[in-house]
Amino acid sequence: MYGGNVGAVCRAMMNMGLSDLAIAAPREDCSEFDVIRWSLKSRSIYESRRECATLAEAVQDCTLVAGTSSDDGFYRKVSRTPREWAPSFLEAASRGPVALVFGPENNGLSNEDLALCTDLIRIPSTPKYASLNLSQAVLLCAYELYLAADEYEPPEEGVPLANSDLRERMFGMWRETLLKIGFMESEKADHMMMALRRILSRGNLTEVDARIMMGIARQTSWYTDQPRKEVSSSDANAV
Amino acid sequence: MYGGNVGAVCRAMMNMGLSDLAIAAPREDCSEFDVIRWSLKSRSIYESRRECATLAEAVQDCTLVAGTSSDDGFYRKVSRTPREWAPSFLEAASRGPVALVFGPENNGLSNEDLALCTDLIRIPSTPKYASLNLSQAVLLCAYELYLAADEYEPPEEGVPLANSDLRERMFGMWRETLLKIGFMESEKADHMMMALRRILSRGNLTEVDARIMMGIARQTSWYTDQPRKEVSSSDANAV
Repeated sequence: MYGGNVGAVCRAMMNMGLSDLAIAAPREDCSEFDVIRWSLKSRSIYESRRECATLAEAVQDCTLVAGTSSDDGFYRKVSRTPREWAPSFLEAASRGPVALVFGPENNGLSNEDLALCTDLIRIPSTPKYASLNLSQAVLLCAYELYLAADEYEPPEEGVPLANSDLRERMFGMWRETLLKIGFMESEKADHMMMALRRILSRGNLTEVDARIMMGIARQTSWYTDQPRKEVSSSDANAV
Repeated sequence: MYGGNVGAVCRAMMNMGLSDLAIAAPREDCSEFDVIRWSLKSRSIYESRRECATLAEAVQDCTLVAGTSSDDGFYRKVSRTPREWAPSFLEAASRGPVALVFGPENNGLSNEDLALCTDLIRIPSTPKYASLNLSQAVLLCAYELYLAADEYEPPEEGVPLANSDLRERMFGMWRETLLKIGFMESEKADHMMMALRRILSRGNLTEVDARIMMGIARQTSWYTDQPRKEVSSSDANAV
């Protein structure tokens, strides 16, 4: 079924005008026979795929990273439908590489994978059986992009957006700093960092935005390393 | 792949709130193993399927019969996109049984199958590779129905629509009559009847409409059987 899904993903991509496939942590038991049977005329997409060890590596040069989920987890409530999301994704695509990310068939994207995403997409479906087949989820998102592209006019110019690599360095610095200043305990760090990721992913984060945020983290960290002056209790109250 | 497709169709149906599956002329080499692997939690849809010898039998009680095509054949140009089509299908569904019909993976619906359809749907896709995987086409149409249903309010009342069985009897009578009166030659009858089918399928044909059309065909046929009166050449010119 894995090879069949991979092949069906290629076909859905080509049907809707997409071509660049990257597979993170590819399984070794992928049946080429199934890929060929299900991809049919879109086999070239499979043959020119990139294989990456991790999702972080696959999306490192991407500005927007949109992840899909049919689940109702805590952070998943900030998600949009494919139709709501498509125009903003096209806008970002006119300014730099973007990625649309799907999890494995059996359990979808992990929380660690979702952390790398700037956008969350939730495909409308019945609560009775909300989980879509992987290749069908791909088709549906690609279809909404294909339709939205018909009406879309790219903007004249724009400031460069932060890519995933820069964002991850920024979040890494913030994590260190927030632990250092005792803002969060290490066992709650993942949870808190997820909240920070959502806050900073609401709009499109530009490179300048990311560098400002990194500057704040760096300065905070530096400042806390300085010898402290004595604080009188009246000073403390004034804060 | 056939069994996998059947299973994936069941899953797409359940994801989007559909449940009644009919398979016309089912293949004998359907792998139950593949159906189960691809249908997962939607196996009940497969288990409660109807199997019919022909498409005509499968849709005989249906008012609207919507057929899908990614092709650009002559009569296929009157097709609508799933998004344009969905509201009218929901409206008909509130008044009687309706069917959404998909052809086999390899070559889609035949002209004979398309003749049974009142509505034609064409899924937007790139000309580079327009042909969608069967189960993905199902998902896409079902998804558009699912979204449209959210906004749809059924009308208070309505006149009953003609079902497929009644329509086919009507077209059968017209075919006979048009051949009898020499309107068309028998080798061009299929082509002409397809045109008539498209003309009479543009709006929703009610039972009363169908009976009127049958009445006209019957009367025409009866009239031509009557002894002819002599026609002078001046009478003929006046026609």
